[in-house]
Amino acid sequence: MATNYDRYVARMKKIADIGHAIAVLSWDKETYLPKKSAAIRSQQIATLSGIVHEEFTDPTFGDLLTRLYNQRNLDEEKKKNISVTIHDYDKATKFTKRFVMQKSMAVSNCFHAWLKAREANDFGLYQESLEALVKIKRTEAKKLDPKADHLYDNLLDQYEPGLTVATCDTIFNDMKKPLKKLIKKIKKKKAPKNGFLFKRYDKDAQWNLGIYILNEMGYDFDRGRQDISTHPFTTSFSADDVRVTTRIDEMDLSNMLWSCIHEGGHALYEQGLPIENYGLPTGSAISLSIHESQSRLWENNVARGKAFWSKYFTTVQKMFPKQLKKQTAKSFYRAINVIEPNLIRTEADELHYHYHVLIRYEIEKALIEGSIEVADLPEVWNAKYKEYLGVEVTDDVNGVLQDIHWSHGSFGYFPTYSLGSFYAAQFYAQAEKDIPKLEQQLAAGNSQVLLDWLRENIHRHGRRYEAEELCEMITGEPLDVKYFMDYAKKKYAEVYS
Amino acid sequence: MATNYDRYVARMKKIADIGHAIAVLSWDKETYLPKKSAAIRSQQIATLSGIVHEEFTDPTFGDLLTRLYNQRNLDEEKKKNISVTIHDYDKATKFTKRFVMQKSMAVSNCFHAWLKAREANDFGLYQESLEALVKIKRTEAKKLDPKADHLYDNLLDQYEPGLTVATCDTIFNDMKKPLKKLIKKIKKKKAPKNGFLFKRYDKDAQWNLGIYILNEMGYDFDRGRQDISTHPFTTSFSADDVRVTTRIDEMDLSNMLWSCIHEGGHALYEQGLPIENYGLPTGSAISLSIHESQSRLWENNVARGKAFWSKYFTTVQKMFPKQLKKQTAKSFYRAINVIEPNLIRTEADELHYHYHVLIRYEIEKALIEGSIEVADLPEVWNAKYKEYLGVEVTDDVNGVLQDIHWSHGSFGYFPTYSLGSFYAAQFYAQAEKDIPKLEQQLAAGNSQVLLDWLRENIHRHGRRYEAEELCEMITGEPLDVKYFMDYAKKKYAEVYS
Repeated sequence: MATNYDRYVARMKKIADIGHAIAVLSWDKETYLPKKSAAIRSQQIATLSGIVHEEFTDPTFGDLLTRLYNQRNLDEEKKKNISVTIHDYDKATKFTKRFVMQKSMAVSNCFHAWLKAREANDFGLYQESLEALVKIKRTEAKKLDPKADHLYDNLLDQYEPGLTVATCDTIFNDMKKPLKKLIKKIKKKKAPKNGFLFKRYDKDAQWNLGIYILNEMGYDFDRGRQDISTHPFTTSFSADDVRVTTRIDEMDLSNMLWSCIHEGGHALYEQGLPIENYGLPTGSAISLSIHESQSRLWENNVARGKAFWSKYFTTVQKMFPKQLKKQTAKSFYRAINVIEPNLIRTEADELHYHYHVLIRYEIEKALIEGSIEVADLPEVWNAKYKEYLGVEVTDDVNGVLQDIHWSHGSFGYFPTYSLGSFYAAQFYAQAEKDIPKLEQQLAAGNSQVLLDWLRENIHRHGRRYEAEELCEMITGEPLDVKYFMDYAKKKYAEVYS
Repeated sequence: MATNYDRYVARMKKIADIGHAIAVLSWDKETYLPKKSAAIRSQQIATLSGIVHEEFTDPTFGDLLTRLYNQRNLDEEKKKNISVTIHDYDKATKFTKRFVMQKSMAVSNCFHAWLKAREANDFGLYQESLEALVKIKRTEAKKLDPKADHLYDNLLDQYEPGLTVATCDTIFNDMKKPLKKLIKKIKKKKAPKNGFLFKRYDKDAQWNLGIYILNEMGYDFDRGRQDISTHPFTTSFSADDVRVTTRIDEMDLSNMLWSCIHEGGHALYEQGLPIENYGLPTGSAISLSIHESQSRLWENNVARGKAFWSKYFTTVQKMFPKQLKKQTAKSFYRAINVIEPNLIRTEADELHYHYHVLIRYEIEKALIEGSIEVADLPEVWNAKYKEYLGVEVTDDVNGVLQDIHWSHGSFGYFPTYSLGSFYAAQFYAQAEKDIPKLEQQLAAGNSQVLLDWLRENIHRHGRRYEAEELCEMITGEPLDVKYFMDYAKKKYAEVYS
């Protein structure tokens, strides 16, 4: 006979099935949807979102969760599943189905307005639907916890459980001074040449290189695939179907390279979640900062590293002999690590990157508390780019329109990018201790040892531990920006030698 | 305030949204699904199928339908929607959600077994899961109406409302004699040469030709797209998102050509349904034979016609100058109409095609009534091909494994292919009367006049009329095989002159 826990699992799997159907519809929307099919697709996604909400917030399910919470004979893993689900349930029940569907429609509208605005390079075409969405997000934040220290805390918490403005401020403050100092030091030195990265690189050849590298990283194409989209992303329809997208700029090899490796890092995490826990917290990713730690670790600590290119440079050189004939593994490694302020977050170097995040963090915080409005965004954006990065924003596409996130209603997401980098550095430092001769192994193309380490220490646990808890478990310490700074100082001393 | 009818519409749209989500998941399954992702995808589709069933068979919805049925102030269109929905409701409520989900899983398993069996060219790999599915289909037939003259009637009715074994027997009998006579007559004459169709035709160039022809037919790529799949199909996620797939054989130009045009015909029907009636019977296609009349009309009456190639031959010749340099519009037209028995239904000529259908009809009928079993299929199949077409089946892929239909649980579907051809001939004969100089217009590339005629007479009505009713309305007569025979006699007298 089915136990209460069996009933719980069945419901969770059903909800996951519907949720993943939404993910398929959304993936299709961003990769293959015909031009004029957006309106009905948005409605279809909204309908399914309503059904997911209904299934999850059903009071009889709430009762079942309460019964399971009070049940004594569950093992630790089951207990964890129940407590995490109750946490999620309590949040979800703060919203009506109507609200959830409205939000879903507002997101779809906003996403399509964003696409149009980008095409026309005109923020004005985006403003109205973004205003509608921000209004909904403010309401959402209020409903979650009207007494929070900061309304924005409630949105941060959706991506990174427990994260607050106070914590973010501390972390960014810890970062600011040493980062500024390091950049200042670097700027005094002569930058490596990187012009060759911006020659013409054939699109098909770039595509093939991306596929090759994903394979080398251990991404399983039998349980995933890569497609093209405006904004690269990773999506999962189960650990057995984790898809990535990329974009290719013929005049910039780095664009495809970092997007493939970054999304590949996310995808390795999702493919490494235990499929037998499909639909359950223990089968899901912990939080966005841990997710980002995986993408950043592969992107920065591994693939912007010397060992990686000592293995792969000659392969890339063979694929692009004309563009790379005068280069060496070393000159390539130095070129991909040039430190230079720029306009586009996804094309930023590892150091300036955090200013891009900081800017978004400050803007989101102000937007949600209402101290700025959507109409102010371009002006505020441009001013902050001038202030933090010393660059003039030339137009909306290279400014406030560059990211997809706000069009998806994702406010509170960006800070996890910096946290992710910091976690990545701390994890990687530990991996270097745990794995004998890690750098030599990477130089020999054996990144599998690192993947195994990540699978063992992070992926297989799902949401069994919280981010901070996991970090302490693995590294013996809470998150500390110093690991990132140590890594950066050591690396850039070498790059700029 | 929302009326009962509004509530009905809202429920129907919700059901359509979930149904179309299933269609997206299925489309993805047959185009882009990674190798090892089939199991979870099948489960996701089954879950959504269960939800659709639950939403549709909800007793409160049944009550609403009854109230609406007794309501006097509804206009004709609304009345039609209600009566058709009640008809569908009565059928759906014969099944439990459990049964629907089981069937969905059995279909998914069977489809993947079919793919594997094709790859290995071994029916044995398919037999077990097909047996499971046939068992379910027999149960389904019994549940629908245990007192039907023939259990198979109940399955025919799912694709073609009202179609029975008795009607099929009559139609196939009407067809057999004159068709045999015509083929006999043709065989006495010298066949046109068609070897040039089987030279090497570059895949990308074929793809481009397919896209070009779909555009010329009036298929709207802003509300659809084409992809590659093992078995070409058309699927609709709304009239604003109707997708086709094709397959390309580098050594056979016809394969891609007829699949593109055939699916294009289906897609024009779906794109022509009134989007404002999304989710309602009046926004849906009538039946499979009417659907097939649209694909066959474009494939055979239009694109295997002289007028069509007098317009397009030079374009195709320019794309494939080497292969077609010695050909003319006339020799091309004759070559694509060679009459020759063969093994593969989708590659059959217009006349032998109906023997392929007849064979499947006879086998299905026997299978559902239990006079043959799944294990007998290869033997029965091969014997019938010998009997009706005089050809030896060499292996399973070129025999019993060639069609996707049974793996989808589609028993009762095939006869609509012949009916569709017969409807197509009858409709086309009427179009020739209604549209001034239709052949000259086609020769001038103005197939839009024909599309307009189809939109006006067929597409815009959705399920407002039944197939027979529509046929009488348009042509003044019930379906009559003589239109097809007249068309065929006239055409082949010319081709084989």
